[in-house]
Amino acid sequence: MPPITTKAQAHEIIDKYEYFLFDCDGVLWLGDHLLPSVKETLDLLRKAKKKIIFVTNNSTKARSDYVKKFEGMGIQEVKKEEIFGSSFASAVYISHILKLSKSKKVWVLGENGIEKELHELGYSTLGGTDPELAMTDTFDANDERFMHLDNDVGAVIAGLTFNLNYLKLSLTTQYLLKDKKSIPFIATNIDSTFPMKGKLMMGAGAIINAVAYASGRKPDAVCGKPNPSMMQSIMAANQDLRANPKKGLMIGDRLNTDMKFGRENGLDTLLVLTGIESSETLSELPIEESPTYYANKLGDLYELCNV
Amino acid sequence: MPPITTKAQAHEIIDKYEYFLFDCDGVLWLGDHLLPSVKETLDLLRKAKKKIIFVTNNSTKARSDYVKKFEGMGIQEVKKEEIFGSSFASAVYISHILKLSKSKKVWVLGENGIEKELHELGYSTLGGTDPELAMTDTFDANDERFMHLDNDVGAVIAGLTFNLNYLKLSLTTQYLLKDKKSIPFIATNIDSTFPMKGKLMMGAGAIINAVAYASGRKPDAVCGKPNPSMMQSIMAANQDLRANPKKGLMIGDRLNTDMKFGRENGLDTLLVLTGIESSETLSELPIEESPTYYANKLGDLYELCNV
Repeated sequence: MPPITTKAQAHEIIDKYEYFLFDCDGVLWLGDHLLPSVKETLDLLRKAKKKIIFVTNNSTKARSDYVKKFEGMGIQEVKKEEIFGSSFASAVYISHILKLSKSKKVWVLGENGIEKELHELGYSTLGGTDPELAMTDTFDANDERFMHLDNDVGAVIAGLTFNLNYLKLSLTTQYLLKDKKSIPFIATNIDSTFPMKGKLMMGAGAIINAVAYASGRKPDAVCGKPNPSMMQSIMAANQDLRANPKKGLMIGDRLNTDMKFGRENGLDTLLVLTGIESSETLSELPIEESPTYYANKLGDLYELCNV
Repeated sequence: MPPITTKAQAHEIIDKYEYFLFDCDGVLWLGDHLLPSVKETLDLLRKAKKKIIFVTNNSTKARSDYVKKFEGMGIQEVKKEEIFGSSFASAVYISHILKLSKSKKVWVLGENGIEKELHELGYSTLGGTDPELAMTDTFDANDERFMHLDNDVGAVIAGLTFNLNYLKLSLTTQYLLKDKKSIPFIATNIDSTFPMKGKLMMGAGAIINAVAYASGRKPDAVCGKPNPSMMQSIMAANQDLRANPKKGLMIGDRLNTDMKFGRENGLDTLLVLTGIESSETLSELPIEESPTYYANKLGDLYELCNV
């Protein structure tokens, strides 16, 4: 299977689809570094009146943070409604699917993105970025913070966190064991790693696996890609796509989340090689798991159109 | 199955066995709190010329630290040779089974116990308790420490650590992925939790699961109980027990490590209820997994003899 390399191929793709769904990390940017010709590609699609949707498993940010991140990279046109993140999806799951009472609290093993989306829906949170849960390197068996559980916690959300420590992981374990393991356990996403400057950093799935193993539980729901509930939210807001998924193209850098997510929801798929996967992995792939297209980078769509 | 409650039962057990193998946390002590009549029970066994062996999955301490811990609790007679810890077992595995060259370094996700045992065998270590790997709560994508891997690392040992952070977990993941996943991955033990003051803290197995999931690997070896390599070390040092395992009684608080370890190596077993298990779990157990005996606490052996 050859990559997209001609002007005709690029035009064909742009003409064929009405909805362009983008993963963010590894597709638009790597960390804080915008990838080449990404802004120009997005501009090209907007000029062609295409619908643009960003679908990210990165739960460390809320939708409002993403709008700011886009702005900081010189991409001004992005609206909060165009962004579907796993932190938002997890908060919506708690509210709409679990219908958790607003008088209950949510224990968060994660970053501020989850906290913000929950607060926006009217929930108070515990854990998360609370500075009271910082930990020095010395473990103190008499540390009272290990002992105090809040009886109002009605759900646990776990996701990627950079400020994890032994205290937060142990408290999460205790909430998962509490009340005969009955408190719902929601995972934002289960990515094992994410790319940063050519290295692989530990992903949300690894952190979730730690507390899952400690508590002898599995998450009751995984809200990010490739879980279909993320696509259900997107389609609920875009009835036209729901009626005909073939109008949509899912663009991502990861086979087991992005490409699976697109394929299993009836969309065509475009894999870019700026993130996790390489052309080597692609060549070893069974045909039923192959993406519809692949490109060395997203910006090739713009660059090829301007050859 | 009734617990040990009579003087005759206690005497019978003491008379019947020559070797008494003890788990430590949850049997002798809980954290820093010595359990009742433990010292007296050990004294009783020593007076009766029984061989005493301590077998612990807690890798945070080295054997020399355990000798000091015993002394601090008023138990003076314990010799380093009587202690078999998972940190020692892991270091021995690296040296005797893997036969790793002393010019190679070992990356440690764990506490000082592992570092000490490795240093004693002539290895230099990276990671572990290195204060240079401390992390503030803010994640910096430009942090150079995420990028630097040492090409001399020839093995990874992962175990329980209280000073874990995102940097150490990500670096461990990178060593596990390095050189096409060829660097040996040694787990000290895979306990999911351990008890502290009536709560369950996250155990080594949970931390190991995080880096295993992130790297898409499983440990190449698990050195602690119930792995038979721990018993092989003990039997190598105690030929008499090797010749007749029925001379030994394994005493522990956990079914899936201690009791399994004893049973699968041909020893009789005694479960005490001062740690992880309750009489409720015991009653639900299939007969083939039942311990030979159970007691509410280890100290009952002494107390019943002095009724």
